[in-house]
Amino acid sequence: MSKLVIVGTVAFDAIETPFGKTDKILGGAATFIGLAASQFNVDSAIVSVVGGDFPQEHLDLLSEREIDISGIEIVKEGKTFFWSGLYHNDMNSRDTLITELNVLADFKPVVPKSYRDSKVVMLGNLHPLVQSSVLDQMTTEPLLVVLDTMNFWMDCALEDLLTVIKRVDVITINDEEARQLTGEYSLVVAARKIHEMGPKYVVIKKGEHGALLFHNENVFFAPALPLEEVFDPTGAGDTFAGGFAGYLAKTDDHSFENMKKAVIYGSTLASFCVEKFGTERMENLDGNEIHKRLQQFKALTQFEIELT
Amino acid sequence: MSKLVIVGTVAFDAIETPFGKTDKILGGAATFIGLAASQFNVDSAIVSVVGGDFPQEHLDLLSEREIDISGIEIVKEGKTFFWSGLYHNDMNSRDTLITELNVLADFKPVVPKSYRDSKVVMLGNLHPLVQSSVLDQMTTEPLLVVLDTMNFWMDCALEDLLTVIKRVDVITINDEEARQLTGEYSLVVAARKIHEMGPKYVVIKKGEHGALLFHNENVFFAPALPLEEVFDPTGAGDTFAGGFAGYLAKTDDHSFENMKKAVIYGSTLASFCVEKFGTERMENLDGNEIHKRLQQFKALTQFEIELT
Repeated sequence: MSKLVIVGTVAFDAIETPFGKTDKILGGAATFIGLAASQFNVDSAIVSVVGGDFPQEHLDLLSEREIDISGIEIVKEGKTFFWSGLYHNDMNSRDTLITELNVLADFKPVVPKSYRDSKVVMLGNLHPLVQSSVLDQMTTEPLLVVLDTMNFWMDCALEDLLTVIKRVDVITINDEEARQLTGEYSLVVAARKIHEMGPKYVVIKKGEHGALLFHNENVFFAPALPLEEVFDPTGAGDTFAGGFAGYLAKTDDHSFENMKKAVIYGSTLASFCVEKFGTERMENLDGNEIHKRLQQFKALTQFEIELT
Repeated sequence: MSKLVIVGTVAFDAIETPFGKTDKILGGAATFIGLAASQFNVDSAIVSVVGGDFPQEHLDLLSEREIDISGIEIVKEGKTFFWSGLYHNDMNSRDTLITELNVLADFKPVVPKSYRDSKVVMLGNLHPLVQSSVLDQMTTEPLLVVLDTMNFWMDCALEDLLTVIKRVDVITINDEEARQLTGEYSLVVAARKIHEMGPKYVVIKKGEHGALLFHNENVFFAPALPLEEVFDPTGAGDTFAGGFAGYLAKTDDHSFENMKKAVIYGSTLASFCVEKFGTERMENLDGNEIHKRLQQFKALTQFEIELT
């Protein structure tokens, strides 16, 4: 078992879907990543920033999950990052209604001293310079760095993004972003180009169509569990990444074979995340439910064809 | 091993993709289904119609595959069904440029006497009344009837379509068509509604995103093999259906477990079909290649997570 340090947003979200809408609720990439990773009882810390308006109960929720929050800076006079989005009927497209950076605009991450030797680092979606700064603070080289990013940084900070991408072992990125980053439509070709940018492992997230893991000439695919209803996709990608990184931190095995399992765990946790608004489902999730859903994943994908 | 009777078009296609374009080449649902099923050396027959303009060499190609063509009517004074389509850059959308029904307009299928006791019937995409007529001609009730259809018949012959759907065991349909047929966005809910229309097994084809097999509360998923290049998607769905039906005719086991394997074989064969224009790849495909690709499918999807 390794220590896991997570950098990312801890935020307010306001979400509207065809099923309803929320006021400002707990959100943020690091929140979803941390909740997912906490399922593996790893020693983890979140590095982030919130404003004076951020309720203590949200911080307590993370602490109760044994997540170290000493790296979450509280800017008393500031306001917490706020995102608001509207999902359309197919749940695959969304409009961003509001983005208020607030305290995130001047965020200088500080990794707690006791986590600067963490073996696993999960760089949640944030400005690539912030992601780089976390790596710079590590006193011993991590064994595994996982980076998540999005198209926004390709549009406005591409050079910084390419610099940090060079330094990571695994990148998780969605299909459209992989295409934008490489200019290639085929995900197989896109993954190869991203390999050449640095990451030995490339995970391409396809939302309801599952996720692909590439490593040299190897490829593994995990479907998304077919659900009767996707209630709110917010945080599903972060939950996937958190499950992935959490499982690898727990098992200390960064082989392709074990990374396949990490992808399955990530997909399993993401399948819960979308069942309720925001973090609600992830706050109320027990090991038995996860176990049962892993069995569903096996039934969904495993077959017996004897090949000699 | 069971006899397999296939009804569907035998046709000319003219295809344009970002990679190039063809003149009139061999196409048609029954052609692709027959070529795929022939990989299993089952005793199969195609029921279809062509015009006097149809080259003998195309018929010879089918005969050489041990496909009985006595049920392919040749209307000497007529012209063969012709379809022309243009694929866009993403290969997921296409425009139909030309549809000339020609001899298909008055097609009255006649199942050869020696195939009226076939245990497996594959109803390729055609007017639902033509599909029904084939079932009416069977002298003993088939053990397995598989139906493929498309949105066109939902728009202009819905009642006839619902009548024939009631009579089949398996339906193969793409995701958008499943949504149109049921008015449900969730494929899980759509599959349940289609079950209620008659078919015990529902296969939803998602193109590059794979295929789902539903049977009561069971669901199985086969991804499409991630390819560097999809050259021409024409016939991929029919090839999938042909591989599926051919494997089931060969094995005589219509259990859910065996149907999972049939879905994998169908996906495997479809992954070859798209590598070249039209039927070219399916005409030049040997058992070793199939075996190797099945191994790729296993590597792509199989994982080891011990669950008690």
